[in-house]
Amino acid sequence: MSTTTVPRDLELSARVLASPQDFRVLTGDRPTGALHVGHYFGTLHNRVLLQDLGVEMFVLVADYQVITDRDVTGRIGSVVEGIVLDYLAAGLDPERATIFAHSAVPALNQLVLPFLSLVSTSELSRNPTVKEEIASSGRSMVSGLMFTYPVHQAADLLFCKSNLVPVGDDQLPHIELTRTIARRFNDRYRPLFPLPEAMLSTAPRLLGTDGAKMGKSSGNSIELRATADETARVIRGAKTDAERRITFDPVNRPEVSNLVLLAALAGERDPHDVADEVGDGGAAVLKRTVTEAVNECLRPMRERRLELAAEPGLVHRVLSRGNETADAIAESTLAEVREAMGTRY
Amino acid sequence: MSTTTVPRDLELSARVLASPQDFRVLTGDRPTGALHVGHYFGTLHNRVLLQDLGVEMFVLVADYQVITDRDVTGRIGSVVEGIVLDYLAAGLDPERATIFAHSAVPALNQLVLPFLSLVSTSELSRNPTVKEEIASSGRSMVSGLMFTYPVHQAADLLFCKSNLVPVGDDQLPHIELTRTIARRFNDRYRPLFPLPEAMLSTAPRLLGTDGAKMGKSSGNSIELRATADETARVIRGAKTDAERRITFDPVNRPEVSNLVLLAALAGERDPHDVADEVGDGGAAVLKRTVTEAVNECLRPMRERRLELAAEPGLVHRVLSRGNETADAIAESTLAEVREAMGTRY
Repeated sequence: MSTTTVPRDLELSARVLASPQDFRVLTGDRPTGALHVGHYFGTLHNRVLLQDLGVEMFVLVADYQVITDRDVTGRIGSVVEGIVLDYLAAGLDPERATIFAHSAVPALNQLVLPFLSLVSTSELSRNPTVKEEIASSGRSMVSGLMFTYPVHQAADLLFCKSNLVPVGDDQLPHIELTRTIARRFNDRYRPLFPLPEAMLSTAPRLLGTDGAKMGKSSGNSIELRATADETARVIRGAKTDAERRITFDPVNRPEVSNLVLLAALAGERDPHDVADEVGDGGAAVLKRTVTEAVNECLRPMRERRLELAAEPGLVHRVLSRGNETADAIAESTLAEVREAMGTRY
Repeated sequence: MSTTTVPRDLELSARVLASPQDFRVLTGDRPTGALHVGHYFGTLHNRVLLQDLGVEMFVLVADYQVITDRDVTGRIGSVVEGIVLDYLAAGLDPERATIFAHSAVPALNQLVLPFLSLVSTSELSRNPTVKEEIASSGRSMVSGLMFTYPVHQAADLLFCKSNLVPVGDDQLPHIELTRTIARRFNDRYRPLFPLPEAMLSTAPRLLGTDGAKMGKSSGNSIELRATADETARVIRGAKTDAERRITFDPVNRPEVSNLVLLAALAGERDPHDVADEVGDGGAAVLKRTVTEAVNECLRPMRERRLELAAEPGLVHRVLSRGNETADAIAESTLAEVREAMGTRY
């Protein structure tokens, strides 16, 4: 386990390590494309570590969130199948982790309605992450779903009463809103929900091979499921700079440093050591080093993924089981919410 | 059947009368207080007529909508029970009409999420009825549920594929939004939803006894369930004006004309005839006339209501049955929506 995966908040980490069985985590992904190395080093690796520690895991395929900033769901079936295979290949274990889809759990989704009553439109408008996503979506129209999705996320976290959420900084405003909603519900009706704590990821964010944000659908990512050759090709095409000597200097040399970082993460090494080792070898040697490290790191996962993909009906079985578990929990929480609100007749 | 209950849109009425079995109506109420004469002459009477014609009726107790403009649900259990008894007393028949509550039908509520993706925040902000309700709520904060409730209403109308909605003018923007959502869903995914038609109520709107808008919780209404004595007392306290001779002149004499109208609606008479009959009798005779007409009109309903209220568990049985029917239909529509959106894995 490299030092970059130790959570920043030491006190929280100590509590998790001391009694993992006291924690329930909800995390997930929007199924807009294949998972890539950014996901792996950013969150997926950490999810598997938490699962293996004995923390109870809920992993959400947030399919309704695909249409926050696009018109239609597209070929969502094959994207979801691919992501679930990525999860399993990376080590999430459906015996221990509940992997489920938004669209399959009506009782979870119903919670959005009472929760919407607990927040104001100005609170929703002020959310900096939503503002940024609206700006970067390049669309002049903001959908109602984009505007309200942090409330949907609150329903995700609260339906299963998760108390720990591993996130990046950009998700902090959403966790804060979730805590506000939980606090207001508890005050107005009856204490029912925990206030989930954010566990900030310490993994430095990887850029895409073009130096921009790495994106599932941006063509600048190294997919977990790519072959070794495809990986080599993507890394060969990565942007570098004119200086021959390789250094780790993310501020002044973002593209080169990003490649160095990738090799370091994949090889569980210090990025400065990687840079020193390549030294005057230049971009060509750097890219070869990165390619080898990434392919070596991902090889077992990729082999496992090929085996899993050959099992007919596997993804369907995993999701059916996860959906069933999530639905039972959501129905039970919804019953408590009805009781607390007096809406049982 | 008085002329005031014949729908304004003759062509639509002709179609409904010619083949009532082709129509499915969804209507409902926010359970914020007892139903009153305004509801009866405005919508309830008409719902019973449509039901008796053979139109399929869905009647929604919109319990989640109680918290659009107030913090908590309050004593909602007894309010809902009272409203359902009002429905039954007025002639809605649970063998023919599906009476159900929002909070009991998760698959209906789930539809709010994909539907939110089909509208923009500016479309939601422009809704004139929501703007007015926000202004009249007297609250500085607008809840997320208030802002989005027309989308929830679209889910109400579309989950059961209703094609006819008896409404007042103020509801027209919501029907328009529902049609927009249905059209966009049908275009983007697969033709699934009818575009519901509004059937405008022709009943002139009754004012409260203080001349302001009649409200379930304003203390200015004549409740359907009131006793004859309570009714007499409320009408005795009604605002009139200084002119002795009674006329029907809603523009210049709103309070007096409102009482005349109430007597006319209750007695199925022309308001001018009522005014002529009272003539120089003044406010005292007018109030006696109104009291007699209203008590006479409501007597059978009130007697029936007392009988129904004495049946233990009746409301619970009616709602359980209605919720079950609504849930089965909502689940079936949601399955079609999942199929259309490709979110079946």
